Order: sequence, then structure tokens, then C-alpha cells
Amino acid sequence: MFQAKVKSETLKGIVDVVSTLVDEAKFNIDPKGVTLKAVDPAHVAMIDMKIEKSAFEEYAADDTELGIDLDKIKEVLRLSRSGDIISLEQDEDKNRLVINVGNVTRRMNLVDTSGMSDPKVPNLNLPAKVAVASEELQKGIKAAESISDHIALTAHPEGFEMVSEGDTDSVSLKLSKDQLVSLECKETARSLFPLDYFSNMIRAIAVGTVVTMSLGNDYPVKLEFSIADGRGTVNYLLAPRIESE
Amino acid sequence: MFQAKVKSETLKGIVDVVSTLVDEAKFNIDPKGVTLKAVDPAHVAMIDMKIEKSAFEEYAADDTELGIDLDKIKEVLRLSRSGDIISLEQDEDKNRLVINVGNVTRRMNLVDTSGMSDPKVPNLNLPAKVAVASEELQKGIKAAESISDHIALTAHPEGFEMVSEGDTDSVSLKLSKDQLVSLECKETARSLFPLDYFSNMIRAIAVGTVVTMSLGNDYPVKLEFSIADGRGTVNYLLAPRIESE
Amino acid sequence: MFQAKVKSETLKGIVDVVSTLVDEAKFNIDPKGVTLKAVDPAHVAMIDMKIEKSAFEEYAADDTELGIDLDKIKEVLRLSRSGDIISLEQDEDKNRLVINVGNVTRRMNLVDTSGMSDPKVPNLNLPAKVAVASEELQKGIKAAESISDHIALTAHPEGFEMVSEGDTDSVSLKLSKDQLVSLECKETARSLFPLDYFSNMIRAIAVGTVVTMSLGNDYPVKLEFSIADGRGTVNYLLAPRIESE
Repeated sequence: MFQAKVKSETLKGIVDVVSTLVDEAKFNIDPKGVTLKAVDPAHVAMIDMKIEKSAFEEYAADDTELGIDLDKIKEVLRLSRSGDIISLEQDEDKNRLVINVGNVTRRMNLVDTSGMSDPKVPNLNLPAKVAVASEELQKGIKAAESISDHIALTAHPEGFEMVSEGDTDSVSLKLSKDQLVSLECKETARSLFPLDYFSNMIRAIAVGTVVTMSLGNDYPVKLEFSIADGRGTVNYLLAPRIESE
Repeated sequence: MFQAKVKSETLKGIVDVVSTLVDEAKFNIDPKGVTLKAVDPAHVAMIDMKIEKSAFEEYAADDTELGIDLDKIKEVLRLSRSGDIISLEQDEDKNRLVINVGNVTRRMNLVDTSGMSDPKVPNLNLPAKVAVASEELQKGIKAAESISDHIALTAHPEGFEMVSEGDTDSVSLKLSKDQLVSLECKETARSLFPLDYFSNMIRAIAVGTVVTMSLGNDYPVKLEFSIADGRGTVNYLLAPRIESE
Repeated sequence: MFQAKVKSETLKGIVDVVSTLVDEAKFNIDPKGVTLKAVDPAHVAMIDMKIEKSAFEEYAADDTELGIDLDKIKEVLRLSRSGDIISLEQDEDKNRLVINVGNVTRRMNLVDTSGMSDPKVPNLNLPAKVAVASEELQKGIKAAESISDHIALTAHPEGFEMVSEGDTDSVSLKLSKDQLVSLECKETARSLFPLDYFSNMIRAIAVGTVVTMSLGNDYPVKLEFSIADGRGTVNYLLAPRIESE
């Protein structure tokens, strides 16, 4: 059983983040809230999301799973405005999700979740930690786009740097310690990442969000940020691209 | 002879509605105003429009006909802003229409109207009548678009419903009696329509307009609404799609 | 040596104008400012631009040349907002230009200028002179676009006219003497021009700019206008299209 009401913008924030990795996702529901783990088809990135029941305006649930085609939720969101309340209800008999926005009711078949196993989140030892406003990262991504398919993230004791190198041009965004929200870094940590994955996730993060990045040398990056007005958290892991010398 | 001045937004309202059905149209002009009857090439929908001379800022005309390529009027409208006065004048010697907006003069050849006969508007007995704000219909159309090519319109004694059914999903907009402007309906009346025709016409109606729909069972729908600030009326007839069981 | 700071909107104004003709351009730098001469690949139009050093917030330069890929400057401009200060610095050792906007640094290889000779600006005797607000010309271009690929510019002692003639339709913008900023014209001067070239340049001119056009009969048109808040001037020459009778 699952029955909930949620603000349009909260649902949008959740769907935007998850849909950067997968088209269909399995939401694990229990009485305390919603969790989701997903990897993209190429196994380059992984998301681990928790949303507390308090992120919803109303929430009543037993243990259940909902396999959802995220594009369909986006269609419903396009019918709503920020501030609208969207009601969601599982119809167990027909294996459907019934969504209400104002006078509109959308009934959608749920996706079979039997093939969707929860990926195991690896335990990583990432020595450097950089907390920064999402807007700064968005600026760095925009600058990098015309230069290369990759972006190097570097934390060093004095600050943080995003660098993209092309054949003829390069671009860098440098943030000194005082331009960051916080910085924990004893030694320089640098890894190279596919720009499209990094960019898609950063763009999905709401403006005004602080993103905490954990970095190592040629190691995955972990992004942590909150969603749903602080009533949810996202951990996002992105595999590095090992540079050939 | 035809010579008139009209507000940009009034002319736009007229052209938007007519151009949902035809690219070229015959406007029948007489001293009292303008009328137009047209069917689309597939004979699925028909429009019957009357515009009083008072809809124009200035108006002087004998009995005449103007065959107009509507895209050309749209080009002129793109040169104007809401509130601009557009002057129209028939040049009978050269069979042209001369249009002025500000400092710009557009001269366009009129289209031959000899092959354009006025369609006969059928007399239909449609028992149910629903009056509703155009915004509500627009919401219903937007919700239906991702689901199916058809939309069912249903009037019943308690309200009005738009339903679209796809293979896996369905969507409905329900309006109770008190969410409608008015409702006259003794027995349920339901017909299915091609979504594209219905949608194109509803989208052409100005926001804030009340649309009166007359419905039967597997019968055409008649939409009535005013244009030109109440100085014109449109009757729009759309043929049903008979469902195969 | 070249080292300068410039407002984002000033740099944008310069690049918008030059990029209507060429993708890569040679900027001639000296201690007093920047000059540029360029023709388009089809040799239909020519630009002769001068920008005083006072157009820059800071400016320090020896005699040098910078071959610049204009698209790359546009990429940098997209990272800035109106009012942002962009710093430019030539890196002579690496033959690069280093650009800073906020925390972002872009390093770009300069383009080889050895094949880019400065075109010779012809000395033309154009008897008529019309000064007009760029908005009026933009309106005339917009009206002409749906009609023809050419536009006739006519100065006569009472005013100025832009006319486009198609097979069935024509459009004209007429400006009387008092709708112009100034008019010097003893005899009618009329020439026909390719609409795309004329349109691209007029669109690149900032709103609120006065454009002075010098015209003859079947002669090139010269457009003069200021950029960089009056600290720069552009002369633009466009070859006529000779009409076949």
C-alpha cells in the first residue's frame, strides 16, 4: 500500500535527479519513507537516494515497491505548477499508480521490478572533501562544454579546481578556500571524469543547494546533496576515467 | 469595396481560429460585417464565423468576397504589437489587399474564390450543453496528448469529463457541475473525437473565453464561443469517431 | 603585447558585428586601440572597424596582431552577464589568448594571420545620406523576409524607402523626412541588395543606434554606426545586385 501527497516541486526534484541515470526506476517504499538505488546501463554512475516521509504533505505506506517510468511522471509534472499538490496512490489490484493534479487523473501501469536489483553501494575511502554551491559547479560545466568530453576535478589544500583540456584550448574554474563552503584536504587529490555524466547530475541539482564532493586520486567522486527541502539526501557516485599517458 | 481598420489582436484572434482548418479562406463581406464558412480538406470539421462591423475600429464595405492566404496575414501580424491598428483595403483593379501597419505597407494578391463554395451547416439535435472556461479544456488536452490520438467528451447530469485511453495508461479531466459555467444535461451524452482537431481549435481560443459545447451520443460536438471582444461568434462542428468494439 | 579589460556587452557588440562576415578575424592592435578590416568569403561585403582604447576598462598594448576564432569568444561571452568585466591577455610565448571571466579562465590558441591580408577599402562617391534609428531598419527587414531575397533601398528628397518585391506580393517601409534622424538627398538614389547580408548586419547593430546609410544608383551602400558606447565606429560596405531588366 502506498498513498501520498507531495508538492509538485518536490516530486520534480526527485525525478530530475533519478532520470539523469535511468528511464525506469524501482522506488522502495516503507512506512518511514522512500529509498532508491540505481546504476546507469553502462555502470558508470550510481545513485543512492533516501526521502523521509516528512518530505510528503501526506504519507501512508506499507512495505512495497513501485516500478515507475519516469517520463510519465514528467508528463504529469508538466500539467502542474510549483506549489500544486500531487496525490499518488498505488492501485494494487490493477498494478497501477493513480496520480491526481487538480481535476486531472492519470492512471499508469507500473513497471515490472523483478529484474531490477538494488546495486551494492561500494565503501570508498576518499581523503578530500569539498563543499561548494551548485551554481559554481554549473558555471564550470558550462565553460568546459565547448572544450572537451572530460573534466578533471582537483582538490588541494588551498582550494578546488575544475579543468577541461582540448587539443587547442583549455578552460578552468578555480575556487579558493574562501569561495568554498568548506574544504578538508591535506594532499592534492585529482581525478578525471566523463563530462556528460557529471554535467547531467549537476544540472539536476536545484539552484542554492550545497554539494559536498569527496575526491581521491584516479578514484570515483562522491557527490552528496539534499533534496526535498532537506527531507531527503542523494549520494551520487561517478567512476573516474583513467588517463592514458 | 472593403476598407477597414482593426486592432492587431482582433485580427489575430480571427486568423488563429480560421487557420486551424484551412490555409486559404473566403471572407464574405457586406455592409454589416464579415462572415466565413469553411470545412477542412478532410471534411472532419466545419467553422461558421460571424464578425459584426463594430468589431472593427473603422469599417466601410459593399458586398464583396476576399480570398485570403492566412499565412500572409500572420506574417503581417508578426510586424505588429497588441494595440497596433492595422488598416486593410481592397484594391479592386489589381485584385489585391493592401495592408498597413505603422510605416509598413504589404500588398498581397487575393486568392481566387471561384472554387470556394460555402459549406452548408447541418442542423443537429444535440441534447446536452456544457459551458466551460477555455483554460479547463486546454488543461484536459495537454493531459491527453501523451496518451492517445482520441479524446472522449462526456456530459452527464452531474458534470463533464474528458477521457483519453491508451494501451497502458489513461487520463481524465473531471469537472463537477459547480466547476462549469453552466450545464444542461438530462442523460449521459458521450462521443469520441480526434484529439488533434479538438486540440488545435481549443488552443486557438483566447484565454478567458467561455466555450459552450453541445454533445450527443456518437454525434458531432458543436463548440460556440465569441471572438473580437464579443463582437463576433464562432460555431465549430467536429465529426465524431465511431468506436469499433 | 596586449592586455586589456572590457565590459562583457562591449566585447559582445564587437563580436556580433564582425561575425556577420567572417568566422575568424585578424584584430590589429596598437597602443591607441584596435582596428579590423575584413571581407566575407564571397567578397560581397566589407567591414572597417576602429575601437579606441577608451572603449576598454583597462588597455595596454604594443603593435601586434591577434587572429581570433570568433565562436570561441562567443562561448566565453555565454559565461558572462552584462556588466561583467572580461580580461584578455596575449600569451606571446605560447601564441595564445588567455581570457578571464570571474573564476573561469579560458586559454585559446590564436589563429594564424599570415594568410589574412587587410582588404583595401574603396573610395566611393555616394551622393545620398540617410540617418535612421536601427529599429526602423529592423522593422523593414522583418517585413521583407517573407517576400523576396532582395531589398531595394531608396533615398529621395522627401524620405527613405525599403521595398521588397515578390511574384505576387510586395512590402515597403516608408519613412518621411521627419521620421529620419537626418537626410541629405538632392536626387533619388536607389540600389538593390541581397537581403541576407543586409539583414544580418542590421540585426547585429545594438538597439538604439543611429545608422547612417550612404546610397547611390546601383552602387554599394555604406552603413556607418558607432559601437562600444561611441568609443568605436564601424563602416560596412555592401555590394549592390544589378537588376536585369
